[in-house]
Order: sequence, then structure tokens, then C-alpha cells
Amino acid sequence: MAGEKIRAVQYGCGKMSRYIMRYMIEKGIELVGAIDNDEDLVGRDVGELCGLAYKTGILVSKNADGVLDATTPDVAVLTLFSYMEEMEPHIEACVKRGINVITTCEEAIYPWTTAPVNTSRLDRMAKEYSCTVTGSGMQDIFWINLISCVAAGIQRIDRIEGSVSYNVEDYGTALAKAHGVGLSTEEFEKSAAHPEEEEPSYVWNSGEALCSKMGWTVRSISQRRVPYTVAHDVYSETLGETVKAGRCIGMNALVTIETYQGPTVELGCIGKVYGKDEGDMCEFRITGEPDTVFSVSNPATVEHTCATIVSRIPDVIAAPPGYVTSEKLPYARHLSYPAHLYL
Amino acid sequence: MAGEKIRAVQYGCGKMSRYIMRYMIEKGIELVGAIDNDEDLVGRDVGELCGLAYKTGILVSKNADGVLDATTPDVAVLTLFSYMEEMEPHIEACVKRGINVITTCEEAIYPWTTAPVNTSRLDRMAKEYSCTVTGSGMQDIFWINLISCVAAGIQRIDRIEGSVSYNVEDYGTALAKAHGVGLSTEEFEKSAAHPEEEEPSYVWNSGEALCSKMGWTVRSISQRRVPYTVAHDVYSETLGETVKAGRCIGMNALVTIETYQGPTVELGCIGKVYGKDEGDMCEFRITGEPDTVFSVSNPATVEHTCATIVSRIPDVIAAPPGYVTSEKLPYARHLSYPAHLYL
Repeated sequence: MAGEKIRAVQYGCGKMSRYIMRYMIEKGIELVGAIDNDEDLVGRDVGELCGLAYKTGILVSKNADGVLDATTPDVAVLTLFSYMEEMEPHIEACVKRGINVITTCEEAIYPWTTAPVNTSRLDRMAKEYSCTVTGSGMQDIFWINLISCVAAGIQRIDRIEGSVSYNVEDYGTALAKAHGVGLSTEEFEKSAAHPEEEEPSYVWNSGEALCSKMGWTVRSISQRRVPYTVAHDVYSETLGETVKAGRCIGMNALVTIETYQGPTVELGCIGKVYGKDEGDMCEFRITGEPDTVFSVSNPATVEHTCATIVSRIPDVIAAPPGYVTSEKLPYARHLSYPAHLYL
Repeated sequence: MAGEKIRAVQYGCGKMSRYIMRYMIEKGIELVGAIDNDEDLVGRDVGELCGLAYKTGILVSKNADGVLDATTPDVAVLTLFSYMEEMEPHIEACVKRGINVITTCEEAIYPWTTAPVNTSRLDRMAKEYSCTVTGSGMQDIFWINLISCVAAGIQRIDRIEGSVSYNVEDYGTALAKAHGVGLSTEEFEKSAAHPEEEEPSYVWNSGEALCSKMGWTVRSISQRRVPYTVAHDVYSETLGETVKAGRCIGMNALVTIETYQGPTVELGCIGKVYGKDEGDMCEFRITGEPDTVFSVSNPATVEHTCATIVSRIPDVIAAPPGYVTSEKLPYARHLSYPAHLYL
């Protein structure tokens, strides 16, 4: 393989894909197809879409089957949905053609318990067609590898706590309301704390992956929604109003995992209205011998997710067939050279 | 090997070894011997030395050859000196008996260019006697693995900057003077900036290891000593005097590595008089796409070094023969189970 470029199809041409396509091209991956059913995107050249200085000749197509059949890529990069149920038919379309899949789908990072039926089905199918399906993104490195890397320098671990965040302002009014923005903590407890349909927080899946990487087995997992407040007023552009100090500016989906080995993992995924100059959080505290606190300051979530996806492409191609979650791959590597040299 | 405990000799019974011996015992490593020539330590039970609730029956001996011959351990943990020249005869004593060596010696983390003759000689010898020599410690995880782990989530790296620190107050008057504590920056430039014998800073060796792990080849390395000042008065207990704001409270040994691939690595090893509640630094900034800043807050350098050494013992035993620097080992793992289960 050392002389041959990796051939990839981009499946989903939204915001993330613009970075991923450029990053792939920069790392010497041959982009051979692009799929999206958004009529505003169909027919556009991906070179233009992702800000290259030239046209690539690859046009966005809404005919997924046609593109996958015509191009037979080594890998398809799926940037479509956050949960496995919606992902399954799209992953299946690739797997049935023996095409490896890597996806930013957040649940895909470790879907064995939150979407066991879809995942097992895809696992069997991937083994049958000799290809690999893996979920990756920011979490792979910054919420999993980074923690297990630091943990190796710690003698005894009693507890791992982590907080990651996103800006509620980026997702519109409905999400802001669902996050309880503007409510008192009492109002929050009566409404936003108990949604009709509770979906697993992204840190549910990344927390299970972390436990798997550490060699820990899960005794219990629970998730609760707690209000997020600060001691000063915060203006929400989405709601067009100022949230008074002490009222909710968002919520923390707090996942607690107890393990049979003893350590507890508590991860908070905080969706809140950001203050001026505030960025994403990525902070961890390991309690044990010794206590260890580490963080990434204002991580650039989109760029890290896209760079991680591209870094992982050679690993996914080289992995054994099946649904292989990222914590079972080797640690991700920065690609200093064209991606196919890492096969 | 899965049923058999790892057998280890502790070679050097100073401060670090007290942690390492306890950590090894906690991880199910059989401590079979302890060597030190300090008459205050000779004859003492290591259980007492490292604060166990029982005596181990292992007494500190000054007869290194006798202990190594009698115990034939799987690994010897050498906590003796900071530079390879002084280490060589002690490493040789182990290697000639086919005993794997792991050492906290700072230069040993990547001694190929700063001590090439000693290292090549030990490498040949280790291959002849089928054992492995590796340097590890805090740097292995926190100055090398941690950076390459994060780097995998970054698309383009232009520059890596890092700062680590130690407290000048821990090492006596001579070191404080050599670090220029109390001097004006002009006085520093005339004296402490240019020592008669310039030794490689610890980040020289860890920086070369980092480049090796990233797959980068070194175009140039240089080291310079710059004064470290702060804008407020700092009291030095070692010197028994207050250093006025703007005068040196220590120095930064700044190592700059240029690579043929483009990225520059600039690492500062700061020895300074710590303020109240100030701890060690471990901060990194990667400039590129995207810029990424990450840090460990006040790392517990001694505990991290000792935990890392113990985590690395199965890796060193499993490694191919020769002098194998730690960046060529897989990423270090937290040992959740007895160490021999990781062989």
C-alpha cells in the first residue's frame, strides 16, 4: 500500500465536511466522491466548497449508491447524524460494498450499550464484507486518549471527573429552551430536568469508551440533568434577552459511571450560553495518588474533530474487520506525512 | 508469563525509590533486592524505608554485584544520577547479567546525541545479553506522550512550545547561585548565562524524543540560558533574602529544535524560586491549525515520575533487546491490575 494513495468518499457535505475534505486533500488522500442530498450543495465542486484554490472535478451528488458503486473508495467519511439509528442505513450502504467507514456520529464512539442492536448488526455485516466501522472525532483524542495517556502516570485512581462544553447560542431557540435557559433552578427541576425522551449524552458514550480503554468493567451508569448557573448576568442572543445572575444559562448532562474495579467516572457535558470570549471547556481531574488536574484551553472543537477523523483514516483501514470502537485502535497519530505512509 | 510475578531490584534507595518500591509492591511486583551504598540506609528493611505496614525481609545492601547475582531479577530500577556517563557502569552491571533496566536518569530519556558513545555501547551490550535499557519518568508521559497524543488532533503543526519547572529552593545554595538567583538581568548575562561546562537541559533530551516520536528529523538544536524574573518581590529561603522585583529568581534553560519537516520545538526548563502555593509547571502550546493550549496544573513531579516508571516495567520487559528509548515503546498504560498481567 505504501505507494498508493488512500481513496475516500465524503458522505455528508455540511460544515464539518468542509474541513475534513480539505484536511484529507492536505494529507494526500484522494477525494473521489462527495454525497449530500441538500439541493443547495448538489452539483457544486468540492474544491470550491472547502475553500481550495482550484476545482477538483468532484461534484456533490445526491446519488449515494451511484457514487459508492462508481468510486469503490478505501474509506467513506460519514458526517450525518448524532445517533446510530439514523446512521445505520448509510453505514450499511458502505459496508455492503466492503467500504471502511469512519464517522463523526457522537453515539458511534461507543454505541455497544446505547444502540446494541444496530451496532451488532453492523459489526456482523462488516465482518462479512471485510471492512471496519469506527466512530471518532474530538472525543477520541481529547476525552479518551488524553485521559488514558495521563492516567498512565498516576499510581492510584479513585475518580475521574471531566467537563466539556458547547455553546447553546449555536443551535437556535428550541435547543436553548430545552436547555432551560432563563429558568430558575426550581423551574428547571420541574421541566428541563426531565425531558420526555432522554437521549444518552455524548459523554455517556465517551465515558464507556474510556472505561473500556482503562480495562474497567461498568457496574452502573446514570445520567441526570442539572441546571447550570453563574453569579452574573449573561445576555443570550438566541433568546434576545438577558439571563439574570443565578438563573439557568444552560444545563449539564452529568453521567456517572461506577466500575467493578473501584474508580468512578463522572463526566459533564455542559450546554450553556457562552459569555464574551468564552470558549469550549475540556477539563479533567483525576483523584488518586497523586491528584492530577489537566485541561485544554478553549479547544477548537470543529477543527480538532476534523483533524482527528483524518488522523484516524489509516488506523481504520488497517484495523481488523467489524465495528471497532476507537479506544481499541492504537493511540491516534499526527500525520506529518501523506496518510497512506501510515498504513 | 501471565501467572508469574515480575521480580525487581531497586538500585538506588534515595527519595524517589521510596515511592517506586511501594508502587511496585502495590502493583504486584515482587521486590527481591535493594542496593545503595549510603551507610545510613544499608541494612534497613525496605518495608520500613518506604512506609509499608510490614517488614519485607529485603534489606538494603551495598553489594550491588552480590544482590544482582543472587536475585536474577526481571528488571532493575536505577535511580542514581542525571547523566549517562555516571550511569554507565551501573547499567552495565545489570545488562551483563541479562537484567532489563529502567532508569529515572534524565539524560537517559533520549541520550543518542548527548551521550552517543555510552549509549551505543550499552545498546550493543543489551542486544548481546538479550535485555532492554530504557529511561523513563515524568517526561515520558507528560513531556512526550501527552504532546504527541494531543498533536494527533491537530491538522498542521508549525511550532510546539513548552514550559516545565522545578523549585530552586529544593536544591541548596550552590544551585541557587548557579541559577543566578538575586542577580540583575545584566549580571545574569555576564555570569550565569555562560557556565564553564554547559550540560544539556532535561528538555534537550525530552525534546529530541518528542521529535523522534513525531517522525521529525532534527536540523538544529541549541540551548541558551535566559534569566527568569517576575514583577514582584520573592523571598528565597535558601539564600535567606528577598529577591527584589525584576531581579532574577532563577533561569530558563531554553532549548530550540528546528526540524527538516518544518515544525519548531521550543522547550523551557525553568528553575526558579517558587512563590507561596506555587507548584511545578507543565504547559504546552501548539501553533498551527488549530492553535492548541494544554497544561497539567501543578503536577506532582515525584509521584508522576515514580508511577510512570512502574507503569513502564511491563513495556520494558516486553520490548526488543537493546537501548530502547521510551518514545519507541507503545504509549504507557495505567496499571489497573498486577503488572505481570500487562506482559
